[in-house]
Amino acid sequence: MDVKAIIPFKKEGAKSRLGDFFSESEREELALSMLKDVLAALSESKIEEAEIISTGSREGILSEAQLNGAKATLAVSVREDERGLNEVLNEVIAEEKEPVLIIMADVPLTTPESINEIIEHDEEVVIVPGRKGGTNALFLRKPYAFFVSYYGLSFSAHIETAKRRNLSHAVHDSFFISADIDEVEDLIDLLIHGNGFSAEYLRRIGVFIRVDKNSKSRAVVDRRQK
Amino acid sequence: MDVKAIIPFKKEGAKSRLGDFFSESEREELALSMLKDVLAALSESKIEEAEIISTGSREGILSEAQLNGAKATLAVSVREDERGLNEVLNEVIAEEKEPVLIIMADVPLTTPESINEIIEHDEEVVIVPGRKGGTNALFLRKPYAFFVSYYGLSFSAHIETAKRRNLSHAVHDSFFISADIDEVEDLIDLLIHGNGFSAEYLRRIGVFIRVDKNSKSRAVVDRRQK
Repeated sequence: MDVKAIIPFKKEGAKSRLGDFFSESEREELALSMLKDVLAALSESKIEEAEIISTGSREGILSEAQLNGAKATLAVSVREDERGLNEVLNEVIAEEKEPVLIIMADVPLTTPESINEIIEHDEEVVIVPGRKGGTNALFLRKPYAFFVSYYGLSFSAHIETAKRRNLSHAVHDSFFISADIDEVEDLIDLLIHGNGFSAEYLRRIGVFIRVDKNSKSRAVVDRRQK
Repeated sequence: MDVKAIIPFKKEGAKSRLGDFFSESEREELALSMLKDVLAALSESKIEEAEIISTGSREGILSEAQLNGAKATLAVSVREDERGLNEVLNEVIAEEKEPVLIIMADVPLTTPESINEIIEHDEEVVIVPGRKGGTNALFLRKPYAFFVSYYGLSFSAHIETAKRRNLSHAVHDSFFISADIDEVEDLIDLLIHGNGFSAEYLRRIGVFIRVDKNSKSRAVVDRRQK
């Protein structure tokens, strides 16, 4: 079974909720490093082909050269599209006859093992939850029969769509894929569990975890002065 | 292989970070419902015996009657101990010759499947991460050879301890076990994915998820007026 991975990616204005902590170019660099981590995991999995859908305006488009080092055994192509996530993805899957794995670009802790487990499920739709109601990966055996609804509580929307269209579905249980990086405190998980491009980038620019003894030993993210 | 589950539990003053949203008695009720969800998952897993270590002062001690309905095929005992988590657990495991699974009481989304997967790992130590550096479940084949360090970045501490003591270790990847309920926004995951005692309790007291269209469709937790 050939499965193609589809990775939506937006470089321009990426990760705006991390704004207080990084400059705009640092946020773009971090977003790109996370994408490279996802590609590296795919490249070690059974998946052999990935298409990045680079959204946003022309200036923000990804160049293939930027992906260096992350795609040893993976055929990667980049498709540009200025439309929104749902619009683009629904058009793409409507024409797709072979199974696809839609995976977000901001899940840098993704492992090859979990990718393989996801595509080994027998069900027609496999949903991998993100935190707070999101969908961080979505495996579709019959992409043409599905309809994606990202934004908001996409997990519940995708379950409903599978039911309404009589597609069998499973929920795949993965912490590492659930851990999307949206806010500064999410960086704790990346720094603790990550050993790829993005964790390395954070360490290089001086981001670290401090344990706050005054606050029940909670972990907080901090940054060394330049 | 007989594995005993050990569940530390603190009813009194439970879940203080949920303070703004619930009364003290509601927080205790929620904590108890989450414990019952963990027991229900254990009861459907291959584990047949669980010991709850109820910490805190005498008034906060759990009675077995409070666990009604959650333990069909599980032998549950309650042990009282007024000491801190690490102190109690390290004394207990030092004397334990058979494998144990230490699992937190605030992981109500835990599934029987993931419990079975954890105890099927070949390694001597299996760590199931919580969010932000925590350890939400810890499987020890040789409990007497280990030493727990909860609080702070316990995940990293437990990895270090396994290495230092030459115990083989694995990290088990589970979103549902990672999802400990500490803060109000954690309730989003419980309401979306939960169908046990604690999700039912939340719904009964009028807690629900609202999608904030003004804020990039982010999900927020809200509560109906009484």
